[in-house]
Order: sequence, then structure tokens, then C-alpha cells
Amino acid sequence: MPQRVHLALIGLGHVGQAFLELLIAKRDVLRTRYGLEFVLTAAADTSGAALDARGLDASLLLARKRAGQGAGTYPEVGRPGKSALATTREAVADILLEASLTNLKDGEPGLSCIRAALARGMSVVTANKGPLVHAYSELTALAREEGAGVAFSAAVCGALPTINIGQRDLVACTVERVEGIFNSTTHYILTAMAEGRDYAAALREAQAEGVAEADPTLDVEGWDAANKLVILANSVLGVPARLSDVAVEGITRLTPDDFARARAEGKVIKLLCTAEREGTGYRLSVRPTPLGREHPLAALRGWQMGIVYYTDIMGIQFAAVDERGPLPTAAAMLRDVVNLATTR
Amino acid sequence: MPQRVHLALIGLGHVGQAFLELLIAKRDVLRTRYGLEFVLTAAADTSGAALDARGLDASLLLARKRAGQGAGTYPEVGRPGKSALATTREAVADILLEASLTNLKDGEPGLSCIRAALARGMSVVTANKGPLVHAYSELTALAREEGAGVAFSAAVCGALPTINIGQRDLVACTVERVEGIFNSTTHYILTAMAEGRDYAAALREAQAEGVAEADPTLDVEGWDAANKLVILANSVLGVPARLSDVAVEGITRLTPDDFARARAEGKVIKLLCTAEREGTGYRLSVRPTPLGREHPLAALRGWQMGIVYYTDIMGIQFAAVDERGPLPTAAAMLRDVVNLATTR
Repeated sequence: MPQRVHLALIGLGHVGQAFLELLIAKRDVLRTRYGLEFVLTAAADTSGAALDARGLDASLLLARKRAGQGAGTYPEVGRPGKSALATTREAVADILLEASLTNLKDGEPGLSCIRAALARGMSVVTANKGPLVHAYSELTALAREEGAGVAFSAAVCGALPTINIGQRDLVACTVERVEGIFNSTTHYILTAMAEGRDYAAALREAQAEGVAEADPTLDVEGWDAANKLVILANSVLGVPARLSDVAVEGITRLTPDDFARARAEGKVIKLLCTAEREGTGYRLSVRPTPLGREHPLAALRGWQMGIVYYTDIMGIQFAAVDERGPLPTAAAMLRDVVNLATTR
Repeated sequence: MPQRVHLALIGLGHVGQAFLELLIAKRDVLRTRYGLEFVLTAAADTSGAALDARGLDASLLLARKRAGQGAGTYPEVGRPGKSALATTREAVADILLEASLTNLKDGEPGLSCIRAALARGMSVVTANKGPLVHAYSELTALAREEGAGVAFSAAVCGALPTINIGQRDLVACTVERVEGIFNSTTHYILTAMAEGRDYAAALREAQAEGVAEADPTLDVEGWDAANKLVILANSVLGVPARLSDVAVEGITRLTPDDFARARAEGKVIKLLCTAEREGTGYRLSVRPTPLGREHPLAALRGWQMGIVYYTDIMGIQFAAVDERGPLPTAAAMLRDVVNLATTR
């Protein structure tokens, strides 16, 4: 008999819908390989929510979302206008999946939902950076108190296990330095600029490809990367870093001359996230950095992201991913769900 | 109060001694970061064993080993001539650490020790490929029956988390293909050959550097890499592969002409381990393979090892390590011990 795990899903955008796709496509694998059967008992989007302790039909919900119909209009159990927070408080679920849009200003509404879920003893899986950046220590302490789990391997580079390698593999290590390429939008633009386009043309190309948003500020000014670095600093490096602790410089002022100079030196410019050990803490920065060709991150291009951990007892560890679209991020949430369900 | 975990260590060669070093050097980190205190209650080498349920002095044991004195001569509790198997049967321990020399013929004496430990309900951490290659299914089934854990993240590329990424990160993935550079001896030799040396000169250089053994057969004929591939196939890909299922070709017949031809095509020759999905299983091979410069493994050199997982829902995942000597392998054993102690 498979173990039945009840899920509540907040946010039905690209990532939330991709998660529903995975629940459907991977049903057999989840049962045979992990002995798990997932029951979706609640789902919420900006239109409202649907709640049914016996289980919603993920296929139906997905088909309706794709036809432009919100969760609130789900047959019989739809609750138009019901908020994500009210849904979290009412859901009959073991795990809350938080996939609402990242709000870097105050982390809401995700933050309140996560607090409410943990306070009810529900474990939480989130792909949302906002709540973690604003309240990492509070949320992990609350989870410990309640005996619940909080997992967020999807929040820092999607399916790339940046956090998992740091937390589970680099056991007992002193991490001397971390370097990462954490933002694929800027990486795509920098790759195009290295091939000769200027910033404006490279940005237009990235927007046409769907890798940059219409308002690309958070990406190109370095804030998305800085937020991921803050989460990594808290969860892997064990320092209570905040966004204001990161020296952030974006890519908007880079010129073709900068790239020509780097090329002449045999280097390539990356928007590098760096954590460097200093005293009892780490100095954190995000800034355009020329890397020599022999640097492990220098060979990455376009959509790829990567991380390098420099350790005392496990050598230099490098990990990278080539992934596109929301599916790998949803897959990382599924990974967290399975790991929570099988190890707790 | 830290959780006290009792350990029995079989094998006091380079890896076993490095593990003792880590127990000493990381004592405070293990206590503060993981809440664990390790007590070494038994240690065995080819000279005999030392057993003390109150705990052996790791520093003293290490100092004596370095002075050429075996475990059997340890003051008061030394038992000259006592076998590893008898030690395993008698040890008062939660976890057996198996770090004896890899014997690829029949996996002994490690295999019998692991069987004996699991049968007593002890969990096992091993860096030894032999027992896993010979009896993977038997040992994991026995562990399940006894409610014990078996961890071996050190057995496939030391500190590089090849197995952990496959088992814990690529959750619910279909792995279409795996490619790896799993043997640093041959990688070092191939790097030297790519720079112009012939096989004999490159081998001599590797032996002088201590990266190749006096009898390098297991490495240069591809068997060490093939054994690691078999362990990965069993533990990550879920297929009951045996060594005879792997098409193995070593590097001894490569000539400077092969390297010149590869270079002319913009390629670099690596001893590539490959698992390619085919029907319900995987086709396994180890053979010298020219890789284009854009291949993620092409940039690795010398001591480095790496792996690429091609997945359906998590993109292409790449991980590599730059590590030397026995310390990272011992650190990987410590990682397994901590993960077993904190998640079980």
C-alpha cells in the first residue's frame, strides 16, 4: 500500500501548473519507486481556491487553468475570492506547496501562508525566494518548534541542487568560498554581449526568447541573484545574512569595450555571486566579474547556471545545470516533497 | 546534550587514518553543527584489533599507526591477530565503517564484515567498492530487513556526490544517459598524453606523482571505473547490473596518433563511463572517447572527476570535483555517518 500524502498548492502560475503536470505524469513512478501517492486537497490562485479533502482532480484543474479559469471556479468545491492564506488555514494537508510569485519587497502573500502552515504543523515546500529572504531564521525556528519540515531546493537555481549539496553533502566542511552564476536572464544577456551585441540589443533578444521579463530590473540589476545568495548564506553557510549585507552591482552599465578588454585578456564576464569567508562570517557580493578560461564557471553559457564550493576537506566542488522553463523548478519542488515524505 | 554515536572502523590504511584525523579535527564542528559526539569503540587492521566500549583514543591510535604499530598492539585493549570479521561481531557500535582495501575479486574481507554488521542491526558506511559490486542487492535487502542503513557515497568518486545527487536530487526523474570520468589515475595519464607524452612516459609521471600505483592494471584497464559504474547503475539507475554487463576498454593501447587525430578534430580523449537507457535497462560501457570541447566533461583535467546526468524533467545536471589524496574520501565517509545519524 502506498503512503498517502496530502498536498495544498498555493500559486497556479507557470511553476504551479508544471507541478500539476508532474503529479499526473509521474504518478506511477512516485508510487513504484517511492511508495507515495499524492492527493491534492487544496489549490489557490488569485481568483480564489478549491478545497476537497477527498482530493481534487489535477488534470481537470490544469485543463481549466489553461482555458483561463481560476481555481475559484472549480466545479462544486470552488470558492471564488478565497485567499491563499484562508486556504492554507483551512486545507487538510500534510505539506503546503508555496509557488506564488516572488515578492521581494515583503515576501507576501507567501510569507503569511508559510507561517500559517508551519503553525499548524504542516511541512512546507517553497520555490518562493521572498519569504526565505525576509524571514529565514524565523521560519526555520518555527518549523523546528512545530516538528515540521521546510524545504526550498527549488528557490536557488531550480533543479540545480545548490542548497542540497551545501547542506547534505559538504558535511562538516568549512566552506572557504562560494562562487555562483545564479541568474539565467543576465547570463543569457552576457553570453549575447560576449558575442558582440550591446546591452540593449542583448536584452531585446532575451525578451524575445522569453528569458527576460518586460521589466527586467530585478534580474539585470542583480537583485534576483543577490536574493539567492542570501538564502544560500543562511541555509548553507549558517550566517544570518540579509539583502542589505550584499554588495550588488548589475550588468546594465557594461559596454562592448568591457567585453573587448576581457576577451583580450582571455577572460569572460559573468555576473558572479560570491561569498568569501572573513572572520566569523562571509563577505557577500554580486557583480560582473571577468573569469579566466580555466575557471569552472567560465565555460557555462546562456541558460546555464552553476556553483563552485571551495572547501577544506572535500576539495573544490562544482555543479551546473542546463535547464529551461518552469518544469525543472516544479521538479525540484516534487523532489523536496518526496524527500520530506520519505525521511520524516 | 549531543547525541552519542558509537563507531567501529575496519581498515586503518590511508582512508581509515584520514577518517581518524577528521574525527579529531572536526570534533567541535560535529558537536555544534550536528549535535553529534562520536565514540570509536573498535578499530581493526591486518595486525589485529582494539576494542573498548568506553571509547578508544583516536589520537593515540593514529600516532601509533604512523609509528608503524598496528591496532592489535594498542595498550591494554589491543587484541593481536583478531580478525576484522571477529571485531565486527564483537564491537559495541551503531555504525560500522568499512575502509579496508578494495578487493574486486570477491569483495572480502569487507563483504563478510558488512553482512555481519547488518545482521546485527548495525548501519554500515563503506568506501569499499568490492562488496557493493558483488552483493549490492543482497546487502541493501538485508539492511531493509534489519532496519539498518547502508551508505557508500565515498565509493564512487570520493567526495563528489555522484550517488547522492542521483538518489536524492534527481527524484522521479527518468535518467536517459549518464556520462562520467570516474578514475583520476587514467584521467591524469590522459591529460599528460594530450600534452604530448606517450603512454609509458605518462604512466611513469603518474607513478612518480603517486596518482598511479606500481601495478596500475585495475585503473588503466578500466576496471576501477567499471566497478564504480556498476555501483551507480544499481543504486541510482535501479538496474541489477554486474561487472560482466559492462563493455570495458582501457587506455593502454592509445597512441600519440589517437591524440593528434582528436586534437585535429577539436576533441579531447577521456576514459568515459556511459550508461545509456535502452528498453527497460541501460547499456553500460567504459572506453576512451573523444569529446568535443563543448562537452561539460571536456574541460576537466588531471586529478578531477565528474559526472553528467541527462534527465527528462531536471535538465542536464553536471557535477565535478577537484580533490586529491585520501582525505576527501574519508570526509565522504564522515558525511555518510552524519547523515545516517541525523536522519534515522
